[in-house]
Amino acid sequence: MNKEKLIKSIRNVPDFPIPGIQFKDETTLFKDADCLKELSDELYEMYKDKGITKVAGIESRGFIMGPILAARLGAGFIPIRKPGKLPAATLEESYNKEYGTDTIQMHKDAITEDDVVLLHDDLLATGGTMKAAIKLTKRFNPKEIYVNFIIELLDLKGRAIFDEEDNVEVVLAL
Amino acid sequence: MNKEKLIKSIRNVPDFPIPGIQFKDETTLFKDADCLKELSDELYEMYKDKGITKVAGIESRGFIMGPILAARLGAGFIPIRKPGKLPAATLEESYNKEYGTDTIQMHKDAITEDDVVLLHDDLLATGGTMKAAIKLTKRFNPKEIYVNFIIELLDLKGRAIFDEEDNVEVVLAL
Repeated sequence: MNKEKLIKSIRNVPDFPIPGIQFKDETTLFKDADCLKELSDELYEMYKDKGITKVAGIESRGFIMGPILAARLGAGFIPIRKPGKLPAATLEESYNKEYGTDTIQMHKDAITEDDVVLLHDDLLATGGTMKAAIKLTKRFNPKEIYVNFIIELLDLKGRAIFDEEDNVEVVLAL
Repeated sequence: MNKEKLIKSIRNVPDFPIPGIQFKDETTLFKDADCLKELSDELYEMYKDKGITKVAGIESRGFIMGPILAARLGAGFIPIRKPGKLPAATLEESYNKEYGTDTIQMHKDAITEDDVVLLHDDLLATGGTMKAAIKLTKRFNPKEIYVNFIIELLDLKGRAIFDEEDNVEVVLAL
């Protein structure tokens, strides 16, 4: 993988969404056909031998590489969404944020005990949403759970809230 | 394509999001690896000879097959989002809905005049959002624009607001 090229393709947007944040804009990676191919090839190589049967992506930016990876691996794709978005019966998990709490949901029939699940989101910052997604996924009792991010923001030390058994892997550590 | 199988994989959810609506839930198609493959193969066949360089998906359900199709076609992927979600400079288009107006945005550098663009969303209902997406995309002056939906709800006659030059195609007409 040409890591340099992928890293260079990510746009830094200062003060988004609030002053002081250096936002990593991956849309400039996704719109570049070569970079998109490079990234999906790399993700495929990372997970092709794990027997993944479902890739679950977290709304909304986890919906971009998540489905690509599901299709490449011959797996199904599952959306993890905010409340009120999934139409049928759901399981949900709430978690604390800096101010207040947030909730994520999955359909009750999204995962079976025979599944090997890969949870995907675009960016590891504090890791709170993904930690809740792991907790939620465990309630389905699948065979195995893997966790993937495209980018890890090392300064934020979000990795620390995960356990070894969470199988966390990232493509680009910035 | 096994249309019957794909249609059967779509779950009907009565009274979502409001009473009286029969919601077509595609998550039951996406989570089924065989159906996901069948659908992405079909979309690939539909567009492989069009010279598509960018696939643009409309937030959020257009982010599932849109990226898969971009990767399959060797194109880049562009998100079309609601205001406040895209971090860099945008172009936007507003359109009338049943009550009030809505706005969609694309990054100003998302498309060039050399691009052949495929606009994708999951469902054609009234077609208002996609019509605005076409208008927005035309401002970039790309070589050609194609429009795709997975499902068309025939009863709603949304197809009527598009022109022949909008190149609208759907996979499943229900």
